[in-house]
Amino acid sequence: MDLVIIGAGAAGLSASIYAQRAALEARTLERDGVGGGQLAEAVQVDNYPGFARISGFALTQAMRRHAEALGSVFETAEAVRVARAGVDWEVQCADGVRYRARAVIAATGTQRRRLEVPGETAYIGRGVSYCATCDGAFFRGKTVAVVGGGDTAVDDALFLSDLAARVYLVHRRDTLRANRRRQALLRTRQNVTVLWDTVVRDIYGADAVTGCTVQTRGETRALAVDGVFVAIGAVPHTGWLPPEAARDAAGYLAAGEDGATGVPGLFAAGDIRSKRLRQAVTAAADGACCVASVERYLQENRKPPV
Amino acid sequence: MDLVIIGAGAAGLSASIYAQRAALEARTLERDGVGGGQLAEAVQVDNYPGFARISGFALTQAMRRHAEALGSVFETAEAVRVARAGVDWEVQCADGVRYRARAVIAATGTQRRRLEVPGETAYIGRGVSYCATCDGAFFRGKTVAVVGGGDTAVDDALFLSDLAARVYLVHRRDTLRANRRRQALLRTRQNVTVLWDTVVRDIYGADAVTGCTVQTRGETRALAVDGVFVAIGAVPHTGWLPPEAARDAAGYLAAGEDGATGVPGLFAAGDIRSKRLRQAVTAAADGACCVASVERYLQENRKPPV
Repeated sequence: MDLVIIGAGAAGLSASIYAQRAALEARTLERDGVGGGQLAEAVQVDNYPGFARISGFALTQAMRRHAEALGSVFETAEAVRVARAGVDWEVQCADGVRYRARAVIAATGTQRRRLEVPGETAYIGRGVSYCATCDGAFFRGKTVAVVGGGDTAVDDALFLSDLAARVYLVHRRDTLRANRRRQALLRTRQNVTVLWDTVVRDIYGADAVTGCTVQTRGETRALAVDGVFVAIGAVPHTGWLPPEAARDAAGYLAAGEDGATGVPGLFAAGDIRSKRLRQAVTAAADGACCVASVERYLQENRKPPV
Repeated sequence: MDLVIIGAGAAGLSASIYAQRAALEARTLERDGVGGGQLAEAVQVDNYPGFARISGFALTQAMRRHAEALGSVFETAEAVRVARAGVDWEVQCADGVRYRARAVIAATGTQRRRLEVPGETAYIGRGVSYCATCDGAFFRGKTVAVVGGGDTAVDDALFLSDLAARVYLVHRRDTLRANRRRQALLRTRQNVTVLWDTVVRDIYGADAVTGCTVQTRGETRALAVDGVFVAIGAVPHTGWLPPEAARDAAGYLAAGEDGATGVPGLFAAGDIRSKRLRQAVTAAADGACCVASVERYLQENRKPPV
């Protein structure tokens, strides 16, 4: 086989499409038999160009049908390890099945960290969000809380302060870890209030979020907000990948736009890759770029036809 | 105004969508009042993830309607010059109108060079193509000619030799300009024939291309092919951009994935940018990444609210 694509979110599905168009013999592995990745969880996607308003699930299904129409083959399998086996890679799956291919595209994405408080899961897509770029526009003129203290939290608070009427940045410590210049910018925003030493205890509402309970040291109070943006980090799914594939400081696979990880034959596409902007459309572009890199790798690393 | 986006192909339309989502005050300028760029000319697009089969025109119209649904404003105007004007950029248009904005996204794409032979234009989308990655899959098991002698031509011939039964590489000189390692690879392909010192005189067919006339030195003959891939270069539309915006050796704007050109406030998205893979989905990703860069630029370069 030429290629195993591991993960069937926007990056993996796009890679499947491009692999078919390039007539590669490929398989796409998806852990749960449904695929779609984090994108499938998005209640509403307004920013994948060409689909003015669609659910994340419907968008990933459209990509999936697209791949299938071109002949892509999907397998339900969770990759647990990948290792060199001569000129091939061998992918070992949780159920014991193994796949061998000349190249591997890692497209297993990330898992965003959750607050793990009551109401959080129930209100996802109805006020609870993990992506300000994705969902910020739904909160124009409203009041939102951003939870976290790192770069993402501060960037999200800055972004949202241009859209929302009022932004609370809720941080459990008394200092931010974010870039100092960005912190300084945040202090210039008159509609942003930082709640120091504060944690969210629960999120509540009716049809949509109407508030959350915050606790500052001993004291608990209600905070009326229309949205809660959880920005406490994400864990890239890289545990199955070999140590030679370098990670960046945050644990993402260090790879550029072409997806090359530095390990021959191993490529990274989508959220798992070190990059600035994690969106459906940038993941889809990664899938395309990775297949172009795979083609080139295969051309330069196979035996000439006899 | 925050942002002027110049060009309304996949990159410019995606940037328009993201600019609306970020609540930027933006205008998108398109030269011809229709927009869509090169993508709009594609007879059939099979590789923009989510749309299994769509015409390029319909795809760009879908993106256009998407942008308009979010409130994007389009102007019919051809930018002829852009220059700093204090903290703003001033965009001067062919009709004398000027736009001022804090930031500019250059998304004017490229113009592919044409052979300028009889039949070429008539058969675009019916056998004549300017993009092997886009259209190669339509020629599985068929016979194609690739015209050119540079990196793109050799890469296209390699790519197509995995799909087509037979590939002719038609080159007007007796040596290729392409990367030597890629040339060596090409020589290993038994289904590739290089026609040296040869030019295409015309392209003919019925409903679709059935052949072309080639001339080798004085001698003219018919070459039976199902497709002609023209790979003789592309000219990026950069004439209106200031000289400080660095170009790469091929004339593309030197900018990374974030679109930063090195000139503060000026960003590059889509085919105009120095990059490996020029596809609708990579252009759309560029539009998103550029707007993220613009947001950051605006945050860090505006006066704090008073």
